[in-house]
Amino acid sequence: MEKERLSYHVSVQTMVDRIRRDEMTNIWDRYAAQGLGNDPDKRCPFCMGGVRCDLCSNGPCRADAEKDKRGVCGIKADGMAMRMMVLRNVLGASTYHYHTEQTLRTLRATAQGRTPFGLAEPQKLKAFAERLGVDTSGSAEETALRLCDFAQHDFNKPAHEPSDIVARLAPPDRQALWKKLDIFPGGIYGEMLRATSSCLTNVDGYYVSLALKAMRMSVAMAYQSQIVNEDCQDVLFGIPRPHRMRVDLGVLDPDYVNVLPNGHEPFLGFAMVQLARQPEWQQKARAAGAKGLRVVASIETGQEMIQRWTMDEAFYGFTGNWIMQEAVLASGCVDLFACDMNCSMPIDPLYAQKYHFKLIPVSDLVAFEGITDRLDYVPEKAAEQAATLLTMAIENFPERRKGVEPVTGLRLGEAVVGFSTESILEALGGSLDPLLKAIKDGAIRGVAGFVSCTTLRDSGQDVHSVRMAKELIKRDILVLSMGCGNAALQVAGLCLPEAKALAGPGLKAVCEALGVPPVLSYGTCTDTGRCADLVAAISQALGGVPIPDLPVVACAPEYMEQKATIDAIFALAFGLYTYVNPVPNVTGAPNLVKLLTEDLTDVTGGLLNVNPDAQEAADALLAHIEKNRQKLGL
Amino acid sequence: MEKERLSYHVSVQTMVDRIRRDEMTNIWDRYAAQGLGNDPDKRCPFCMGGVRCDLCSNGPCRADAEKDKRGVCGIKADGMAMRMMVLRNVLGASTYHYHTEQTLRTLRATAQGRTPFGLAEPQKLKAFAERLGVDTSGSAEETALRLCDFAQHDFNKPAHEPSDIVARLAPPDRQALWKKLDIFPGGIYGEMLRATSSCLTNVDGYYVSLALKAMRMSVAMAYQSQIVNEDCQDVLFGIPRPHRMRVDLGVLDPDYVNVLPNGHEPFLGFAMVQLARQPEWQQKARAAGAKGLRVVASIETGQEMIQRWTMDEAFYGFTGNWIMQEAVLASGCVDLFACDMNCSMPIDPLYAQKYHFKLIPVSDLVAFEGITDRLDYVPEKAAEQAATLLTMAIENFPERRKGVEPVTGLRLGEAVVGFSTESILEALGGSLDPLLKAIKDGAIRGVAGFVSCTTLRDSGQDVHSVRMAKELIKRDILVLSMGCGNAALQVAGLCLPEAKALAGPGLKAVCEALGVPPVLSYGTCTDTGRCADLVAAISQALGGVPIPDLPVVACAPEYMEQKATIDAIFALAFGLYTYVNPVPNVTGAPNLVKLLTEDLTDVTGGLLNVNPDAQEAADALLAHIEKNRQKLGL
Repeated sequence: MEKERLSYHVSVQTMVDRIRRDEMTNIWDRYAAQGLGNDPDKRCPFCMGGVRCDLCSNGPCRADAEKDKRGVCGIKADGMAMRMMVLRNVLGASTYHYHTEQTLRTLRATAQGRTPFGLAEPQKLKAFAERLGVDTSGSAEETALRLCDFAQHDFNKPAHEPSDIVARLAPPDRQALWKKLDIFPGGIYGEMLRATSSCLTNVDGYYVSLALKAMRMSVAMAYQSQIVNEDCQDVLFGIPRPHRMRVDLGVLDPDYVNVLPNGHEPFLGFAMVQLARQPEWQQKARAAGAKGLRVVASIETGQEMIQRWTMDEAFYGFTGNWIMQEAVLASGCVDLFACDMNCSMPIDPLYAQKYHFKLIPVSDLVAFEGITDRLDYVPEKAAEQAATLLTMAIENFPERRKGVEPVTGLRLGEAVVGFSTESILEALGGSLDPLLKAIKDGAIRGVAGFVSCTTLRDSGQDVHSVRMAKELIKRDILVLSMGCGNAALQVAGLCLPEAKALAGPGLKAVCEALGVPPVLSYGTCTDTGRCADLVAAISQALGGVPIPDLPVVACAPEYMEQKATIDAIFALAFGLYTYVNPVPNVTGAPNLVKLLTEDLTDVTGGLLNVNPDAQEAADALLAHIEKNRQKLGL
Repeated sequence: MEKERLSYHVSVQTMVDRIRRDEMTNIWDRYAAQGLGNDPDKRCPFCMGGVRCDLCSNGPCRADAEKDKRGVCGIKADGMAMRMMVLRNVLGASTYHYHTEQTLRTLRATAQGRTPFGLAEPQKLKAFAERLGVDTSGSAEETALRLCDFAQHDFNKPAHEPSDIVARLAPPDRQALWKKLDIFPGGIYGEMLRATSSCLTNVDGYYVSLALKAMRMSVAMAYQSQIVNEDCQDVLFGIPRPHRMRVDLGVLDPDYVNVLPNGHEPFLGFAMVQLARQPEWQQKARAAGAKGLRVVASIETGQEMIQRWTMDEAFYGFTGNWIMQEAVLASGCVDLFACDMNCSMPIDPLYAQKYHFKLIPVSDLVAFEGITDRLDYVPEKAAEQAATLLTMAIENFPERRKGVEPVTGLRLGEAVVGFSTESILEALGGSLDPLLKAIKDGAIRGVAGFVSCTTLRDSGQDVHSVRMAKELIKRDILVLSMGCGNAALQVAGLCLPEAKALAGPGLKAVCEALGVPPVLSYGTCTDTGRCADLVAAISQALGGVPIPDLPVVACAPEYMEQKATIDAIFALAFGLYTYVNPVPNVTGAPNLVKLLTEDLTDVTGGLLNVNPDAQEAADALLAHIEKNRQKLGL
């Protein structure tokens, strides 16, 4: 298998060699083994086309649109494909919202003084509470508790009672449209109930109404789950502000006790960094024979952490995204892998055994075959839980050093991380004007919200993501990068000011003037919501330009899981031209494809674009931006 | 295709001839068309075995347990199959709970005097409220409102806060076990969030923990959704009490305006009957040229209705279950088909066009391609909505009579319906003792909770259900029948006292003594929860015999959709020996199969039995009952 088919990153390519030498099952070989014939990308055509269903006992069924072959219940290909997509969206919404509930639980306990955390940003708390119409009198703690009550009351509304959070946060013209289309949501639980129940056999087999239900749920998710979550995490742990961070597998040094919080929830990760920064804990690590104790950020938990906290010896750096998980674990440098909420592979126990590290689920959601030790996060116990995890890691160190030959000399890079709406405003001197001026002048043609995961479909890890980002900045499109795909660009060096060399002349000049990279690292996939918030702010600053008319696009070059699918659906509901790759499993559903890629523009203003070719895809994104510039007279 | 492969019911067999003559797509032909080769039951072996997954973009994947072939993420066959089963369960829980929320919304509005309904059973309301620990002072309306508040507060609890409803209603020994296993649930929304989120790619790939999560959600569903729902529907519409009801397709007379509420929610159905019983509405129908106006019950909405209200000229009878839907619609006798919440086929618009009836979704959940008229149920508007529906039906009558040749002379049967815990107690003179005595004496060997749907897998509609019921009563096992499978037995004549002739000598004698049929019609699939409640009462009456030791079994001979899958999972959590057919899509997952069919008995006391052969299955159920009788010294 050629190197490019493995990963964009040389460090990962190197690690695959070791993993294969060790005869460990690994994602690259498992991917290839799924291919039919000798084509690793070839799979069952019914599954690929989204036209199969195994929900009920009359199935499994296959649909064929050309022959008007339907499922036993009578559902058509279009309905089958969209229904499965709604279910994926429910999975995504649910997991996002689980995280949000954990954040609010943490905020509540913190406001009550019962966690090791504090209210790091009282000003932001006040501003966000005011935006939501929550009373901000009294102490910050009182405001925080009222905010939690307000949010949870909104979450619990039935679908037929309009969400106050959405009414408070979403752009007015979008709200009007969503009401017209009957996709203005109620509470997120009610919307999930409605969407899920609609997917039952013989309830809603109509692709159009299913698509509208998915969009409605996505609006609830973006405002109630994502924005509430990220703004509250800012309150707890700090607003992201730009700073440099070590990245790539070279952050792993076998001579240190290395603890990797992994997943999407940063709570125990932050609690561990707080401890690891105390000399006492460094001393414990040294007493076990290590040079010290390091918390190393990983995947989206890591992304949540690195965007908010600066690096030092205790909070050392960031490895990368989901697909390189086995590469990280096989390095022989890991002492403890603490798995919250998502993105930990079912295969991890085999790696824990082979490479002598502790694999500990720290969320009620996570489980592995063969792993019995666990430590589910409880906000009130965070300090004690963090200490337990660090102790386990330190105890593991001598075992690991004795038992595993580590891989060393892997690449160590850097990335500037920590852009957020607030820090972009700070970087621009307090107003969006310099950015808007650059857009109006045409130096920057437009902005791409770049958010996805990483996948092996069609090419190696991050290969298409990096390719797409390069094509976009070359066309003077500023990239705001989120999710696992953000890690792709961080590790690939595109989040450094020096990457301006790869940008078109206009964007390059802006990067030079402002001292920023052409790719602004904007956090995790959960930050999609506040990216929409930023886009709404740009719309407002431009005098109320409708979202679909902005020189703004969404770009998901390597979506992998179900959070990404609901992000894409939200982008469409929000009115954005949205590029998605790999091609979603809907190709067997011609009317659905037409709806998403042609007709939707007359419904929400959004449109789906799919094209595995990076240059053509970037051209299409630019063409949309130029069309909108023309419409706006820019 | 031989007749038996179509349906047990001759009326349906007759209708299939007409449907085929009319060249209409139909479930029988669609089922056959899904078969691979010439075997209608043969399908993709990976789908059949439950060992495929298309959740993420690295897939679709297939697993193979024998070769340790895993999904790209590393998930094994066992994890894949159980994860998909959890998702089915989420669909089932969600839809049950949607119904419950609609019932509470109706109860609340009724208590506020804003619906055409009343509080039909204030004593039951008081008793249920007392059971839940809800203050019953003041008026029934006040109690009802407090009960709604109490229930909804419980539903909204996060998963980590124990449910008060479960604590109040479930048997103490089960509660203790569920706590030990960590499957005592929180609120249903929190449990659905937890189960759904656990199914995301890379969260929980371990079949054992997924199975436990499914069971925990099922406990929340049974008590919070099912029992609250049915008890509150009793409060609104009356406790089921035994009475005779016309059944089978012969209830359809083309000369009447026939309105069929269809689905699971009886609200608008009852509202329509209230109107249709007024001479004014009969007069309107006669003015349109009809002999009168009839509301005809159908599927589970019908089951909810017929168990509570007696028949007359306005509320005429009951057609049957889900699979005969096309047979009903093609009769040329239907003027309006009002589709709530679930069980309406995506194919219905084609039938509406061909056979000239109005197809109207009356739930926000339901949608059909090509159908734009709709009338989503709102409790406060129920009277007005019912009037609109009846008017549409009456207006349809002349069109239908002009355009369609009706089928007449179809079989008209009867069934005794309306058994419930209360009415069984009433029938027994106020105590369970006569039943317990019959069980202790051995006249009745045991009781089977018989609840499932209807499916074409392996045999025709209701063929296996009827076969199983006959085998059970022949073995002196009393059958409590629920769900679409209840309709199978009602239409087949097994819910009549005369069916005692098919029972074994012991059961026959009991039927004679008490004047009851050997199959007690106990309502819908939603009544599973209160069947568990009845089983708990039997356990208590026997001095606290643990549930798994009772001479009681669960039997689901023709499960079809996702509500049935969570009912089965609940039966297992409840500790019942549970027969399920068709064989669920888990056969590619050997460890999961072993867990469900062997090891679970040491966990919850429940056990899954699968066997497509009715005699062998009935023998196994009897053997379990006899084993327990021996254990109890009976």
